[in-house]
Amino acid sequence: MSRRRIGITLGDPGGIGPEIVVRALSETTRLSATTRSSLTTESTGAEFVIFGDSNVFRSEADRLGIIPDPGAYVFRESGPESPSGRRGVPDKDNGAASFRWFADAVAAARAKEIGAIVTAPISKKSWELAGLPWRGHTEYLASLYPSAIMTFWSDPLTIALFSHHLPLREALADVTKANLLRFFRTLRDGLDAVSPGPHEFLVAGLNPHAGEDGLLGREEREEIEPAICEARESGIPVAGPFPPDIVFRAALGRPEKVVVALYHDQGLIPFKLVAFETGVNATLGMPFLRTSPDHGTAFDIVGKSPADPRSMIAALRLAGRS
Amino acid sequence: MSRRRIGITLGDPGGIGPEIVVRALSETTRLSATTRSSLTTESTGAEFVIFGDSNVFRSEADRLGIIPDPGAYVFRESGPESPSGRRGVPDKDNGAASFRWFADAVAAARAKEIGAIVTAPISKKSWELAGLPWRGHTEYLASLYPSAIMTFWSDPLTIALFSHHLPLREALADVTKANLLRFFRTLRDGLDAVSPGPHEFLVAGLNPHAGEDGLLGREEREEIEPAICEARESGIPVAGPFPPDIVFRAALGRPEKVVVALYHDQGLIPFKLVAFETGVNATLGMPFLRTSPDHGTAFDIVGKSPADPRSMIAALRLAGRS
Repeated sequence: MSRRRIGITLGDPGGIGPEIVVRALSETTRLSATTRSSLTTESTGAEFVIFGDSNVFRSEADRLGIIPDPGAYVFRESGPESPSGRRGVPDKDNGAASFRWFADAVAAARAKEIGAIVTAPISKKSWELAGLPWRGHTEYLASLYPSAIMTFWSDPLTIALFSHHLPLREALADVTKANLLRFFRTLRDGLDAVSPGPHEFLVAGLNPHAGEDGLLGREEREEIEPAICEARESGIPVAGPFPPDIVFRAALGRPEKVVVALYHDQGLIPFKLVAFETGVNATLGMPFLRTSPDHGTAFDIVGKSPADPRSMIAALRLAGRS
Repeated sequence: MSRRRIGITLGDPGGIGPEIVVRALSETTRLSATTRSSLTTESTGAEFVIFGDSNVFRSEADRLGIIPDPGAYVFRESGPESPSGRRGVPDKDNGAASFRWFADAVAAARAKEIGAIVTAPISKKSWELAGLPWRGHTEYLASLYPSAIMTFWSDPLTIALFSHHLPLREALADVTKANLLRFFRTLRDGLDAVSPGPHEFLVAGLNPHAGEDGLLGREEREEIEPAICEARESGIPVAGPFPPDIVFRAALGRPEKVVVALYHDQGLIPFKLVAFETGVNATLGMPFLRTSPDHGTAFDIVGKSPADPRSMIAALRLAGRS
């Protein structure tokens, strides 16, 4: 296995995925030619394997007038599914194709042919039209690795979600000492594999003012504090629970702090405020790392306005660290 | 009743309240002398009535070397309670005094002697030491006006809290169509009295992605959407529910948008990120307006570092609009 081989999926061929992959590859190649500090075969030993349709990739490169260095990547064609050619709309065939590319990348990672996967955005609607039972990348990965963790990275803020796509009532019910302990361990191991550290996990409370000594909720005393206490005793660098409306501010601009959010919006409301569409999503707790830009297919601008590849470039950089 | 008479409470005499009141009054007087655009008797017809201990006020002004224009305010001494003289720590006597000043200001507002109250920060701990049953200003006001609404104002963002100091589980249970409709009406009436408008209320969903068509929670379909629909039909300018991790960003820098947050941290996490200690808290839904700076007593800097009066000045300005 080469830890440095990184798979890239093209995402929904009707969205901006192919464009940002072309732009990001071109950018990382160009940068490395001048500074040697970027992500390429030369600078990091990374080698990119693109999972997708090479016709889609080439026609996008032609449209943009950008030719990524052909020495920087190889192509892996896969499956009988073909994109429809439609762009800017959800589409059944595009959904089936983008799923196939992703599933093949995951299979290659499980077979240790690649060490990380960077996924361009798919359309949940396209997957639904294709009859797929998973809502998106995350749900597919969770079906294979139930303890996988979603983390979000940006310059100002890094967060980890204790739970993600659950109704808020169910997310509350999941906040138990045993679940938290398991989560802290998985997060510690996952971060150690990605990022040099040292890290500190700052755990947000569940209730206003982190429960205010039990006046505003019982979960902090009964579940969260005991879990933090036991995790610390076992050497995991975790602190809290902190008042939720203070802890994100406290972690801003301090890359060693990872805020643990106890439910989807507790983490993503602040993250999207400070890192809107420039952040990176990383799935930890699997035998390989998966990263992706923190934005969608942007059907409304496909082929009309230039798509911004910065989040994709950041996703490639983070994957290159693993 | 004079709508333009504004009560100011000194807050905990051991905290930064007296300092920011002195500084804010001096600043508004100075500004008006040069620009006539600020909040003073001349520029807005406002007249300030300070509820507190004039010795505390005068000795703070002496310490700072600032003499607020004596024509800009009158003093209302009240009650037998006396501050202890201790500063920088929670204190029983300071708690009793700061409560008395606040309660007298509320009584004056109920008697229509003043049209608005601006409260400098009290110490919840001092109130507790004084044996008071209310956690703070908001709880005391809620005991008199159960449908009072907490709103938070800043240049980038304005929010209204559907519920505030409740355990998250209880906050979820409060999200019913009837409660929401009542809230929207109170908010509309309260805003009309404070701010010229027009406004639009953007309601955050309760669940991730605002429930995603029922896949991630039932409250949007069963309670929130019907309430919004009925409110709109009755002419209230309300829209949503929107994905919680999108709506705050969408409202940024658009002062006509007021985001309705369905629980304490949903609103205060983003608010404190973008308006940390510069925002204003305004209580609506009462016969008078109450505003306050969005920070605490700052016991750690009392008498050591200068306290920043900007949030207090903003609170005075907002009260002056009513």
